[in-house]
Amino acid sequence: MDVYKTLREEAFEANRDIPRRNLAIYTWGNVSAFDPVKGIFAIKPSGVAYDALTPESMVILDLDGKLVDGILNPSSDTKTHCVLYREFPGICGITHTHSPYAVAWAQARKSVPVYGTTHADHGAEPVPCTGVMSPEAVENDYELETGKLIVETFRKNGINPGYLPMVLVAGHGPFTWGTCAAQSVYHGAVLEEICKMALFTVSLDPLADPLPEHIIRKHWERKHGPGAYYGQK
Amino acid sequence: MDVYKTLREEAFEANRDIPRRNLAIYTWGNVSAFDPVKGIFAIKPSGVAYDALTPESMVILDLDGKLVDGILNPSSDTKTHCVLYREFPGICGITHTHSPYAVAWAQARKSVPVYGTTHADHGAEPVPCTGVMSPEAVENDYELETGKLIVETFRKNGINPGYLPMVLVAGHGPFTWGTCAAQSVYHGAVLEEICKMALFTVSLDPLADPLPEHIIRKHWERKHGPGAYYGQK
Amino acid sequence: MDVYKTLREEAFEANRDIPRRNLAIYTWGNVSAFDPVKGIFAIKPSGVAYDALTPESMVILDLDGKLVDGILNPSSDTKTHCVLYREFPGICGITHTHSPYAVAWAQARKSVPVYGTTHADHGAEPVPCTGVMSPEAVENDYELETGKLIVETFRKNGINPGYLPMVLVAGHGPFTWGTCAAQSVYHGAVLEEICKMALFTVSLDPLADPLPEHIIRKHWERKHGPGAYYGQK
Amino acid sequence: MDVYKTLREEAFEANRDIPRRNLAIYTWGNVSAFDPVKGIFAIKPSGVAYDALTPESMVILDLDGKLVDGILNPSSDTKTHCVLYREFPGICGITHTHSPYAVAWAQARKSVPVYGTTHADHGAEPVPCTGVMSPEAVENDYELETGKLIVETFRKNGINPGYLPMVLVAGHGPFTWGTCAAQSVYHGAVLEEICKMALFTVSLDPLADPLPEHIIRKHWERKHGPGAYYGQK
Repeated sequence: MDVYKTLREEAFEANRDIPRRNLAIYTWGNVSAFDPVKGIFAIKPSGVAYDALTPESMVILDLDGKLVDGILNPSSDTKTHCVLYREFPGICGITHTHSPYAVAWAQARKSVPVYGTTHADHGAEPVPCTGVMSPEAVENDYELETGKLIVETFRKNGINPGYLPMVLVAGHGPFTWGTCAAQSVYHGAVLEEICKMALFTVSLDPLADPLPEHIIRKHWERKHGPGAYYGQK
Repeated sequence: MDVYKTLREEAFEANRDIPRRNLAIYTWGNVSAFDPVKGIFAIKPSGVAYDALTPESMVILDLDGKLVDGILNPSSDTKTHCVLYREFPGICGITHTHSPYAVAWAQARKSVPVYGTTHADHGAEPVPCTGVMSPEAVENDYELETGKLIVETFRKNGINPGYLPMVLVAGHGPFTWGTCAAQSVYHGAVLEEICKMALFTVSLDPLADPLPEHIIRKHWERKHGPGAYYGQK
Repeated sequence: MDVYKTLREEAFEANRDIPRRNLAIYTWGNVSAFDPVKGIFAIKPSGVAYDALTPESMVILDLDGKLVDGILNPSSDTKTHCVLYREFPGICGITHTHSPYAVAWAQARKSVPVYGTTHADHGAEPVPCTGVMSPEAVENDYELETGKLIVETFRKNGINPGYLPMVLVAGHGPFTWGTCAAQSVYHGAVLEEICKMALFTVSLDPLADPLPEHIIRKHWERKHGPGAYYGQK
Repeated sequence: MDVYKTLREEAFEANRDIPRRNLAIYTWGNVSAFDPVKGIFAIKPSGVAYDALTPESMVILDLDGKLVDGILNPSSDTKTHCVLYREFPGICGITHTHSPYAVAWAQARKSVPVYGTTHADHGAEPVPCTGVMSPEAVENDYELETGKLIVETFRKNGINPGYLPMVLVAGHGPFTWGTCAAQSVYHGAVLEEICKMALFTVSLDPLADPLPEHIIRKHWERKHGPGAYYGQK
């Protein structure tokens, strides 16, 4: 009997959501699901097509990136996932894709301003873009340093990753997270849609103003604040 | 027996049309169907995925937003629907989505000029964009004030909502309406297509001229005027 | 027995191709099929959804636009089709759509330069955009005048409609034609693709040069010239 | 028994991937599969729709473009394939399409800078765009000269076609290759995605900086270098 069955199934289902939501072609994205009690996570095997995945093919690792269970090589981005799980308390799912609009903002190395309520519903501040990684960091341990770059970007800008579950890595693409693997993919789709709308917006007006703070707050609060009234909870 | 069965089914069918027409991902849009005799409407429950909807899950409310029948929380935009049904006589369906091209114009806070006959077939003037809501209005009753902002935009510009069934709320997105729920979704799809064509047009020529008045009139009249000859009626 | 069965089926099949090729949403496009021996054509009924069409619902008219057979109202663009069949010898199918990239060029009132071989494979010169119709012409007989505007545009520019089966009507959208109804839809899809590629091209370089004449000629000739060697004929 | 069965099936499957990956409409693309031992290749017949293809319809030719086996005319681009197989050692599959974003860069006659890791994962330098072919070359033997133009572009710029499996032919479109037919289509899809992301990037910032060399190297090496750790090999 597989003691990691539930975690593997959660990671499997979330990975299958990537092509369904058009967030990556071929094998260009990966999701992991974290179990905070056991301190382990299940992640997509590297370079395997989404429709060839099975729950059993998910690789189980600990937060040092050491193999716990599984036959295949884990995603090449595994160490980035490790760093985020270690540094961002409370997150239990991470998604990385190469969705084209998010990649475009990452390649232009621009944070995405809060142009509208679609963005504000999911985060009350711009989606930050990291700096470009130094040659030393790339040389040292590229994927681990990618995680550290994300963490540093949030610290430096005083952003709480529990409130803003998304980032753009300069010249690379989006990482998103959530309270479970499925939610991290949802945030991946949200970020792609926000980036698409924002690109269309600046093509209509390169100097478009962001949403004023009082509307950003309102939209964030009605979904996530203490008196939230969106949804059925 | 459910006395609201027909109204619920109308609202249900129209809500299912939102993802079919690619007007919103996840739960980012809502439709209501109004019964002007009973003074009540059926609306999508808040935060429920389109493919999890059933006719029974539609919430019945009166025009003060008071619950008449239903188990789930209604759409968080319910009060905006109330205001529009009260102030725009003759409309019996309302649709709100976050379709990306319409959102882009709303985020750029620009009215959409009548660049062509596709637009003129559905409205003889620019689709107006509201002003940005004041902190006081947001504080007071956000969704109700959204409705008031729309109504005020039409009054101030002397636009008849029976002739132009669509608006952009600045920094937010589109609201559209019609003589039934299905027609309001149709107008949502029309507005998205108009906004897409208009964005492409200004990307070819930022100073593109709108269609001259005599062609706008002709297209509007052949579909909606007294001697209309489009269609089978 | 329906003596117009074949012509109706040809028009029916070609109309069904419009949504399949994503050339129009709802009812925003129409195709006709012409029988040059009998001097009549079959056209889509006005305002009927594509998936509600049947071969029987196609309307049969002569080149003066007089009803020959059928129950429903013909497309409101019928008289434009009449003019083109009368003035452009050899064409036996016409398609009109509101496909968004072609509409954008029509709304920007710009002819589409021959930027590449995709264009040159189907026409050796820019796709012309007509002028804007005068108030008098609109007043007189709008759809007939639309046809005359197209014909005049080809005459004035010395373009042979047998060699360039496509045009943009300013502020409106594309009309395309061919040796049969199916080919006219094919040319509608070609024009949309050319307009998309051309818009992307000018967004990369607003001053992009057209393809030089010797390459335009080569591509046109290898598909349509006396020594054509493309395809299986 | 067909001694070319395997090669034909490989070419057939790869050609069918073109519409599945949205790389061309109608018949606007072709793939060939090369057998380096026999010195022959199988290629799509000219002008045949993808869903009308069968393995048997694939045409077998030698590297001089002489027919070895088959009933139909081969792709009109056959001689370009011949030149690339002769000049680029080790490639066993070639794909040509008219995918719209790649065509746009070709029509703008611009090489695609390495803006991000999606590009660097598949090639460590810009995707080159050839020069425009001279009247003499067009006159001489157009498709053969297209192949020579590609080869010359790689030689002149010192690019190893084994490391960068893609090119844009000015005013025309993309050619891609690989170690098998399927991989050449994969590279066709990669190039389209890279070109889309790059167009979005320059629309956000026309002066966007390419990825620095140390990150380009890292991404290339982790997939293709001696210590590659992407995937399962």
